[in-house]
Amino acid sequence: MSSVLSGTKIAVLGGDERELILISELVKMGATVVVAGFPKAKVAHGAFAVSSAEEACKEAEVLILPLPGTSQEGIIRAVYTEEEIRLSEKAITSLAPNAVVIIGSARQYLKDWAQKYAFELLEIVEMDEIAILNSIPTAEGAIQIAMEETAITIHGSKSCVIGFGRVAVTLARLLKAMGSDVTVVARNQGQLARAHEMGCKKADFPELLEIIKHNNIVFNTVPSMVLGRNILRYANPDTLIIDLATQPGGTDFEAANEFGLKAILAPGLPGKVAPVYAGRILADVIPRLIINEMTRMKKNILFA
Amino acid sequence: MSSVLSGTKIAVLGGDERELILISELVKMGATVVVAGFPKAKVAHGAFAVSSAEEACKEAEVLILPLPGTSQEGIIRAVYTEEEIRLSEKAITSLAPNAVVIIGSARQYLKDWAQKYAFELLEIVEMDEIAILNSIPTAEGAIQIAMEETAITIHGSKSCVIGFGRVAVTLARLLKAMGSDVTVVARNQGQLARAHEMGCKKADFPELLEIIKHNNIVFNTVPSMVLGRNILRYANPDTLIIDLATQPGGTDFEAANEFGLKAILAPGLPGKVAPVYAGRILADVIPRLIINEMTRMKKNILFA
Amino acid sequence: MSSVLSGTKIAVLGGDERELILISELVKMGATVVVAGFPKAKVAHGAFAVSSAEEACKEAEVLILPLPGTSQEGIIRAVYTEEEIRLSEKAITSLAPNAVVIIGSARQYLKDWAQKYAFELLEIVEMDEIAILNSIPTAEGAIQIAMEETAITIHGSKSCVIGFGRVAVTLARLLKAMGSDVTVVARNQGQLARAHEMGCKKADFPELLEIIKHNNIVFNTVPSMVLGRNILRYANPDTLIIDLATQPGGTDFEAANEFGLKAILAPGLPGKVAPVYAGRILADVIPRLIINEMTRMKKNILFA
Amino acid sequence: MSSVLSGTKIAVLGGDERELILISELVKMGATVVVAGFPKAKVAHGAFAVSSAEEACKEAEVLILPLPGTSQEGIIRAVYTEEEIRLSEKAITSLAPNAVVIIGSARQYLKDWAQKYAFELLEIVEMDEIAILNSIPTAEGAIQIAMEETAITIHGSKSCVIGFGRVAVTLARLLKAMGSDVTVVARNQGQLARAHEMGCKKADFPELLEIIKHNNIVFNTVPSMVLGRNILRYANPDTLIIDLATQPGGTDFEAANEFGLKAILAPGLPGKVAPVYAGRILADVIPRLIINEMTRMKKNILFA
Repeated sequence: MSSVLSGTKIAVLGGDERELILISELVKMGATVVVAGFPKAKVAHGAFAVSSAEEACKEAEVLILPLPGTSQEGIIRAVYTEEEIRLSEKAITSLAPNAVVIIGSARQYLKDWAQKYAFELLEIVEMDEIAILNSIPTAEGAIQIAMEETAITIHGSKSCVIGFGRVAVTLARLLKAMGSDVTVVARNQGQLARAHEMGCKKADFPELLEIIKHNNIVFNTVPSMVLGRNILRYANPDTLIIDLATQPGGTDFEAANEFGLKAILAPGLPGKVAPVYAGRILADVIPRLIINEMTRMKKNILFA
Repeated sequence: MSSVLSGTKIAVLGGDERELILISELVKMGATVVVAGFPKAKVAHGAFAVSSAEEACKEAEVLILPLPGTSQEGIIRAVYTEEEIRLSEKAITSLAPNAVVIIGSARQYLKDWAQKYAFELLEIVEMDEIAILNSIPTAEGAIQIAMEETAITIHGSKSCVIGFGRVAVTLARLLKAMGSDVTVVARNQGQLARAHEMGCKKADFPELLEIIKHNNIVFNTVPSMVLGRNILRYANPDTLIIDLATQPGGTDFEAANEFGLKAILAPGLPGKVAPVYAGRILADVIPRLIINEMTRMKKNILFA
Repeated sequence: MSSVLSGTKIAVLGGDERELILISELVKMGATVVVAGFPKAKVAHGAFAVSSAEEACKEAEVLILPLPGTSQEGIIRAVYTEEEIRLSEKAITSLAPNAVVIIGSARQYLKDWAQKYAFELLEIVEMDEIAILNSIPTAEGAIQIAMEETAITIHGSKSCVIGFGRVAVTLARLLKAMGSDVTVVARNQGQLARAHEMGCKKADFPELLEIIKHNNIVFNTVPSMVLGRNILRYANPDTLIIDLATQPGGTDFEAANEFGLKAILAPGLPGKVAPVYAGRILADVIPRLIINEMTRMKKNILFA
Repeated sequence: MSSVLSGTKIAVLGGDERELILISELVKMGATVVVAGFPKAKVAHGAFAVSSAEEACKEAEVLILPLPGTSQEGIIRAVYTEEEIRLSEKAITSLAPNAVVIIGSARQYLKDWAQKYAFELLEIVEMDEIAILNSIPTAEGAIQIAMEETAITIHGSKSCVIGFGRVAVTLARLLKAMGSDVTVVARNQGQLARAHEMGCKKADFPELLEIIKHNNIVFNTVPSMVLGRNILRYANPDTLIIDLATQPGGTDFEAANEFGLKAILAPGLPGKVAPVYAGRILADVIPRLIINEMTRMKKNILFA
């Protein structure tokens, strides 16, 4: 057991298997961890399980909320409990002064509270490091769906990846490595140059109409309507569409259904297909974030 | 429609989606195809569906049996029919003289009949071409099982491939391409040199005991007891074992169960995970075999 | 012959084999191309070879200067002529109004002139598309040097890539694909996450001291002194250093020499190792740039 | 220093940098090593340098000759000496009884002597392990030549590998990994299936005529005239031919020259491009061979 976080009080509210792995790591690093939304038996020895958000948050210097965040009403996803875990204003105000709140992505109300109550709000889902590490289970999960839903092999298939951000780069590489003939569709010429360097074919959006006629599997990563009715109309009837963009995805699912195309919206894959891996990412990155944040604050105090 | 097989009568007895694809190809090449074990509606337009093996075989110059072959009693696997399709001696004797019989692998009784009734028996499951092409869906199917049965990603996993024959080479390459840290266990130094060239670690069987302590996924391809009780005893408790060797595999499943290890025997993957792909292999290879065989026989007759 | 650039007068001043390929493409697209710094015999049929920069620039709507740019005094690298080709203020002022000047990267005097004489200055060497496409011959050229200068194979070597920008990403992938054990050294956590996803090891700069003790080949892409005396002191004596950063590189070459280390500064590889490929990049990208630029200007005029 | 070979007298006659590495390894393993064809200063401390083959062979239990073997007259390639090292019958007869003689490949006279004087003759160049490990520097050396001799990049090139034996498999993988579009030309359907699995295109020899029209680089590994005048006549004039087959290769070099094609015969690459690597292979494999051989002989004596 190390002691880097010794004496730091950390609250963890809700989550799934991933947070269990994170909690265990935080305990190992010497933190005082108080959790709500987990039965005592599940939680690492050394952490304290309490029954409400308010209780957990009391004087916590760090508050960790799950990657999927909260509902508009503050309800927190907590798979191990039947009870509702809710992030109330009262819970927030009971945090220690200058607390750090870590969450996947925050709704507006939480951002407002951060201003009002002067706590540090860290949204981590869009951090490059988290997003790129999570792209690995996302890509593998997408491949798994493709394997389960088609009667062909990835090897020798014609696939298409729409968009070329963090998930798409990983997915394109994996498809290519498995022997698929991959076309990357993107607008940015630099991204297309990279796709070319990686051995993929490249195309601009207007070409999508032609590409979709001859493809076996189409993966979308763009969170706006790129696979609309006017495109899907031309799709090879055996095409499988896997949409990885944030809900509601970038596919007209109604049209797809009408044209008899199989289209699957698959958000949140890391937590589903590889929870242990995804948990290890949190356990790797979050303690580092906390330490950096606290070092920074100490400096600020010192030089104030 | 081509006419390479024009005038050739071919009987197809039983099978699954793969044979449907093969039948369709044979019809396209001009053959007269008579099938048993398939409902009329499933079979490609132009093929004739009859109800018994005897009827189908009558004067057929080529008889095609499914890859899994027959039971000891001659029962043929035919997934589209409730009725029993049986390869009787009578069916065999009604074939045309010098007929060619194509099967995955033949039981002794069929080999005896080949002698007695002077037909050409081609066992294709062990042909390099078929075996290597089938290794692709086998490897992908094995990966799919690994993905479904573990909470980690293939990327970053420690995997081990036992044996280095046709399936193992493909599987090792795929695992490596997906970012797994692969150790190949084999006896043959040439095979181990090839594994090294492919970027895998290499080990001899005595080292298996040590390897299994630290591995996430173990794939066996050797059809003899290589993962016995004395080895499994040392396995990392989270290890997943996927046995791809011909039934009954090379794992002591009872011992695995006793030690709480998840061990899966997964034979016949191509037909299960990628029937269309596997059907295309048959449609690609079998007509070529038939043509070669008939050319050879004509030459023999010519020079007789 | 197409006519997309029909009627457009383009001047090309100096350069090497790459510009010859570009000139040929511009002529094919219908442009009126006037060049200085090339003998008539070398230049594509249809282009006009003149003897001075002034003459070439006269009323040109587009002026293309070589990727390496000009000296402080305006001297242009022109490998096919003995005569000095110089970009004078007079040449610039003889361009057509609103001309577009394309250059690798511009010195201050040229930027000042762009202001003064109101021409559009496009510096392309840092454009993502050019930089990424050029990273391919750069990476291959670096590998070629490594092959020529070591007595080991890339396969099985321990290599290290410092920095993880456009060239480094391509180089790391290539080394990895060839079977090297690659460590990426960078500061940015997102870049390190990507390196990990690509199968590389990752390290921060303070670890460089340790890494260099056990490495065979070190590739630097960072244009600041990262391989200083205090690091080189610890290098494995057989280490080969290949510095790809812009002159003067990021290596203390004097110290390297003192410690008996082989260190090579290798700028401008694309034009050296794969001029035809590098020329095709220019021929692919520059006409597109010109068309975009002219469309944009027409719109501006229209809406002015 | 280990002692596995303690007390074993080993003679090494001639060779190059590779043998120096082997000698050093044999000394480390405790053998008594006597060498001819090397100056004292070059040889590992602990080995004995003598001046004639006869002297070195005296009572040696093992005799190691270089991979390229001897001339018809017994002359041994020895790069470090001006003097002629010759394997005489007298040298052979002065070996210990039941000696083991290790050589790349043996000429007929040596095979006859093996019979006559009852020594064990091991020809190692064709051993799978040696041949596959040596295929790595061979493939890299071939790539290096391609890089040096063309103005294009391997990435994006169209290449062709003729034959699909041990060297060709390695070379095809490397080309593919570097982003070339690779076609494998072979007769054997199993080999072509493997090429397909590895992501290469496949073709039969009659298609070579068509392929050569559009290829940038052709690598031959077949030791018979496969690139004859009638094929070369159709080659793309920019094609580079690299012939890796044993001398005299499989290319009609005269015809190539006549048609203005660049064609390079490149035998023995491992010793040239990566002597240290190639030496390590010998240092890894040969001691193992010796130990196996001696264990086998002891058993024979025991059970005689």
